[in-house]
Amino acid sequence: MSKRMKICINTGGGDAPGLNAVIEAVTMAAYNRQWEVYGIKSGYTGLLNTDEIIRLTPEKVDGIASIGGTILGTTNKGNPFSMPVCNAVGECELRDVSDRVMDNFKRLRFDALVAVGGDGSLEIAHQFAEKGMPVVGVPKTIDNDMGGTVITFGFDTAVSIATEAIDRLHSTAKSHDRVMVVEVMGRNAGFIALNSGISGNADVILIPEIPFDIEKVCDKLMENELNGRKYAIVVVAEGAVPKDGEAISKGEGEAGRQHVVLGGIADYVAKEISKRTGKDSRSMVLGHLQRGGSPTTFDRLLSLRFGAAAVRAIEAGKFDHMVALKSPDIALVPLAEALGIEKRVRTDGDTILTARDIGICFGD
Amino acid sequence: MSKRMKICINTGGGDAPGLNAVIEAVTMAAYNRQWEVYGIKSGYTGLLNTDEIIRLTPEKVDGIASIGGTILGTTNKGNPFSMPVCNAVGECELRDVSDRVMDNFKRLRFDALVAVGGDGSLEIAHQFAEKGMPVVGVPKTIDNDMGGTVITFGFDTAVSIATEAIDRLHSTAKSHDRVMVVEVMGRNAGFIALNSGISGNADVILIPEIPFDIEKVCDKLMENELNGRKYAIVVVAEGAVPKDGEAISKGEGEAGRQHVVLGGIADYVAKEISKRTGKDSRSMVLGHLQRGGSPTTFDRLLSLRFGAAAVRAIEAGKFDHMVALKSPDIALVPLAEALGIEKRVRTDGDTILTARDIGICFGD
Amino acid sequence: MSKRMKICINTGGGDAPGLNAVIEAVTMAAYNRQWEVYGIKSGYTGLLNTDEIIRLTPEKVDGIASIGGTILGTTNKGNPFSMPVCNAVGECELRDVSDRVMDNFKRLRFDALVAVGGDGSLEIAHQFAEKGMPVVGVPKTIDNDMGGTVITFGFDTAVSIATEAIDRLHSTAKSHDRVMVVEVMGRNAGFIALNSGISGNADVILIPEIPFDIEKVCDKLMENELNGRKYAIVVVAEGAVPKDGEAISKGEGEAGRQHVVLGGIADYVAKEISKRTGKDSRSMVLGHLQRGGSPTTFDRLLSLRFGAAAVRAIEAGKFDHMVALKSPDIALVPLAEALGIEKRVRTDGDTILTARDIGICFGD
Amino acid sequence: MSKRMKICINTGGGDAPGLNAVIEAVTMAAYNRQWEVYGIKSGYTGLLNTDEIIRLTPEKVDGIASIGGTILGTTNKGNPFSMPVCNAVGECELRDVSDRVMDNFKRLRFDALVAVGGDGSLEIAHQFAEKGMPVVGVPKTIDNDMGGTVITFGFDTAVSIATEAIDRLHSTAKSHDRVMVVEVMGRNAGFIALNSGISGNADVILIPEIPFDIEKVCDKLMENELNGRKYAIVVVAEGAVPKDGEAISKGEGEAGRQHVVLGGIADYVAKEISKRTGKDSRSMVLGHLQRGGSPTTFDRLLSLRFGAAAVRAIEAGKFDHMVALKSPDIALVPLAEALGIEKRVRTDGDTILTARDIGICFGD
Repeated sequence: MSKRMKICINTGGGDAPGLNAVIEAVTMAAYNRQWEVYGIKSGYTGLLNTDEIIRLTPEKVDGIASIGGTILGTTNKGNPFSMPVCNAVGECELRDVSDRVMDNFKRLRFDALVAVGGDGSLEIAHQFAEKGMPVVGVPKTIDNDMGGTVITFGFDTAVSIATEAIDRLHSTAKSHDRVMVVEVMGRNAGFIALNSGISGNADVILIPEIPFDIEKVCDKLMENELNGRKYAIVVVAEGAVPKDGEAISKGEGEAGRQHVVLGGIADYVAKEISKRTGKDSRSMVLGHLQRGGSPTTFDRLLSLRFGAAAVRAIEAGKFDHMVALKSPDIALVPLAEALGIEKRVRTDGDTILTARDIGICFGD
Repeated sequence: MSKRMKICINTGGGDAPGLNAVIEAVTMAAYNRQWEVYGIKSGYTGLLNTDEIIRLTPEKVDGIASIGGTILGTTNKGNPFSMPVCNAVGECELRDVSDRVMDNFKRLRFDALVAVGGDGSLEIAHQFAEKGMPVVGVPKTIDNDMGGTVITFGFDTAVSIATEAIDRLHSTAKSHDRVMVVEVMGRNAGFIALNSGISGNADVILIPEIPFDIEKVCDKLMENELNGRKYAIVVVAEGAVPKDGEAISKGEGEAGRQHVVLGGIADYVAKEISKRTGKDSRSMVLGHLQRGGSPTTFDRLLSLRFGAAAVRAIEAGKFDHMVALKSPDIALVPLAEALGIEKRVRTDGDTILTARDIGICFGD
Repeated sequence: MSKRMKICINTGGGDAPGLNAVIEAVTMAAYNRQWEVYGIKSGYTGLLNTDEIIRLTPEKVDGIASIGGTILGTTNKGNPFSMPVCNAVGECELRDVSDRVMDNFKRLRFDALVAVGGDGSLEIAHQFAEKGMPVVGVPKTIDNDMGGTVITFGFDTAVSIATEAIDRLHSTAKSHDRVMVVEVMGRNAGFIALNSGISGNADVILIPEIPFDIEKVCDKLMENELNGRKYAIVVVAEGAVPKDGEAISKGEGEAGRQHVVLGGIADYVAKEISKRTGKDSRSMVLGHLQRGGSPTTFDRLLSLRFGAAAVRAIEAGKFDHMVALKSPDIALVPLAEALGIEKRVRTDGDTILTARDIGICFGD
Repeated sequence: MSKRMKICINTGGGDAPGLNAVIEAVTMAAYNRQWEVYGIKSGYTGLLNTDEIIRLTPEKVDGIASIGGTILGTTNKGNPFSMPVCNAVGECELRDVSDRVMDNFKRLRFDALVAVGGDGSLEIAHQFAEKGMPVVGVPKTIDNDMGGTVITFGFDTAVSIATEAIDRLHSTAKSHDRVMVVEVMGRNAGFIALNSGISGNADVILIPEIPFDIEKVCDKLMENELNGRKYAIVVVAEGAVPKDGEAISKGEGEAGRQHVVLGGIADYVAKEISKRTGKDSRSMVLGHLQRGGSPTTFDRLLSLRFGAAAVRAIEAGKFDHMVALKSPDIALVPLAEALGIEKRVRTDGDTILTARDIGICFGD
């Protein structure tokens, strides 16, 4: 007879649509094995400060798969291997408190941890695994830039929200013969910009993987105008960079950098287009909207499959691995292997080819 | 037997969801009376430069009621009573070209104009009516700040989009224990902020009609925290103003003004909250998203009713009036009367009372 | 100083989007007056069987305004004035148990009841008011057929869902040159069919208020075909009736009735069209979809306003009344007055005029 | 220099969300190669009756990727290899008119055909390929039951619409303590029922691949009731079958068959549950709603990728193949190979495991 386990789950990093569905599936799959399951609030903090641990039951997770965010919260106080510890007068130092986490984990007699998170959180999970904690990872990244899996949850929802926003901007751009520049998430990888730009019938898509020449962008818009399309939609990943310049970052502009602008990359692109072509150009930043709200059906299903697979991995004793999509199946990939890969848009992949085939300009 | 009319329609000012539905209803109601109907592109410009006039037919308007924007465009070149006229070297002067508009209107043998627009456009329509043009107005304002009608089209859609965005921000705010400050449209009137804030379960709503004290806002957030609600949603109309200060405008800050900030009112509020309470606060501006996309069912129906009523008004010879909603009926209101009224949120109205009853703070 | 009240709320009849928003507003408005508020489960049953009464708190109602259904349930066991009471061998008789309800109400020291419901539930509320119970009614009807108020909550959501479904059917009808007949709710009043049909670009709308001639419907479809529109959308209220016949009811056909068909009115209409015109015709019934899910922003706001107004009515001691919308305000209407009115589509109202103006056929 | 091709495209079988996106991508990818591209209306009919062929241009396809249905229509008159040919008095015989199709194809100097369709249409495409027509297939099936590709377009939209409907039914089922039985598409394969049932938090899912025992279904519902969940959602694929019986088909019941019921499988299941458990049970059929309306972002992107890949296949001279998703890439698969595979839900696959892990009952 198989052992009655006692497991726990935490969620780390930025919230993503689907986190609650992972929690629901882990809870239900554990419950149906007659295991006990606990939720650790606020990342690893709950293993330092154990009043942040809650019992998860079918009632607590009923129907949460369709709700955005995470019922466990993700406000990490930091990395237990390098945690800021402060005294009464506010002086802080970084300290390794991972042993205390290990001790609490053992004292609470947990048999396994399901760690849901991005690069950073899974790196920590892997370090704990090396210290002997039985950990199974569940990859989470809205940007789709994690290796080892075809896709992760949250991405489809983010792309859908961005596409819906782009759909909306078409009507106002068209009515006013305007250029609308929309900034979507994607610091290192342009997947959201690429997929939402294609689905949303954009004219131009700018992504980190293809540095752009603003002149080429302007040429495209003028050519469109000749062909009778007087308005345009430009989708820009937040990490897109001009060919000749440095990264354009929002916020405090450092002296000497040519392209650092206060308003972020969308603002920069809109202003340059306006200046160079004389066209009325506006920018907007989708920001937090892309993370929130009910996950798409695709993301709900993927998250539930990930959660259930994590419990089956625990049952099989496969630790220091993460669940991953190898379409159409769920596979287990060693964390060490997955963490070494940075996924980027392949500039010769068929999605880029499709975009070029249907006439989208990347500014290159 | 009634006369076979030849009528035209234009749309002016910012685009609003429902414009196409008005155009569809005017076209179909005219067609079913065997009248001819024409669309004047780009506001009144089409009556100066008559190659911008198109014949409207059932085929051209089939199904457009569900599409955002306006098939006629709204890029006005200006007010015909004070039109910038420029010479080859770029020197411009304002000139009254309204006679030319009148001449063209007569030369094209139009029997009536349906003018769809906001305050500005309907003011022009009224001036033309006084010059003898048979005009029927259709009021359009996303902000719901026009007098003479209970409500106009576009507003319900804008409120719905804002509410949906606020719904989305809840999950991310909650997961991170954050304050999210959302800026919605409403320069002079806070209707969008008020309705979307109530529907979207906001904690604080700031509107132009109720100058706010940022300290009272912070008190509310701290009190919420005591009660266990660690995150908050603050909805701000773009025209909201602090009690002790001047209007906070986006853009170039003029010297000497205390509250002018680069990022707009949402940014200002988020920064003040963060500074005063130490809470992690973020801002976002919904901007153009509120105008775009498919109108809600409510707006489609109202727009179609407005359009059909405008044609019936022409049939009845009731000019220099605008169509208006007097629930549950459509009425005709003299333009002169409607244009004199500035509609604002009534601070003792039941919607404000409802908001206060359910615990929403206005910062007063 | 005003008294600290102890109030209760129940919801009766079919569920409607917005019920939870009423509950939220009543709870919050009571809480903010430092009153106690209780929810009575399953209509009046909870006042017979008092273990079905729950304390309502801000935590319990937080965010429920955006959720469909009712947290209090609506599975009435029946009318307390004529309740089926059964013995162990299953023999039942109708008995008046209203005195027991009154006794329990007093014993629990409730100061007032907010009764949310349709015709039937408010009639019961009025009878209790006459027995001395301090009751305030909140009208609820998806069909919009209740008198005394311009509109009630749930209707806008039902119309929106129906319109969205009709939008979807267009693409498949068009691709296959088909006639799609959609049955929507509306046993006695055609408001949902009328509003969703106009908004959804239907060709034909059949409502109880305008008995239809199936030949006129077929003529319209053939005329459309001549004009190049080979597909059609027909929206039918469940209570629509043919001119020459009796009501078409779903279910057991009684002998001798010509028009009683098993599949309901949509099925009947689709088969007749198919038989008479040779066109490929399909029917579908939207049914329960129209009741479910998140209320529209319009319905959320209206429900919250109704709930808060009910609490203000209690505060003002205005009992045996119901809250009502007199646009743009909320008013109080005596229950006796409102219950006497049956609201129907006015066949000479501007909505019907609009439909005719844009070419929609009613089969008359 | 590569040849300037002249290609055509048709769409066959039932409509599916994404067809227009395929047409858009084929048109744009051809246009950007300076090829000519034509749309053949109504399947192969347009190659018999050549007045049904239209020139496709960027203007005609602008923005259609987000619109449901197909601008080319899919009302096939039949299979050219076995076409019903009728005389004036209505006597018909099946005739092979494929040579006439081949002749017209050559006479019109088409260099290639993109055939978009399901099993049946691609089988015809393959037969034409064997007669020498340069054909590239694009697989289309809402049910996801086609071999050779991980997934096809339309499926994600159908699952999303079904899930949204199930979400809506939860609130009404819960408010009334009811069992709601929803019938979704899937004659031979249960993918839509499985995915929407899991995403939509169903209690029971019945699919063709797992014959069900109605008693086991009832046991599950009674067990749920014990655990306090008094309502239930049952999702049934139209092709689901009881273990001991024959297929339950809608329509004319043949004598002697035990399970043939007039109302279809959902109606049968609801009635049995009601009879055996005494619970209030209702059924509904989603039907055509699942096909219609705007494709999800996932489907838009996949369809655009398929369309562009079909044009690249033509460019590469790879005929008698179909495009297919081999995640994350698009591949080309010989039609003969793909047509031999019938894809079904793997009863030991991880999606079924997930469903069982989270407590969903399949009635087995």
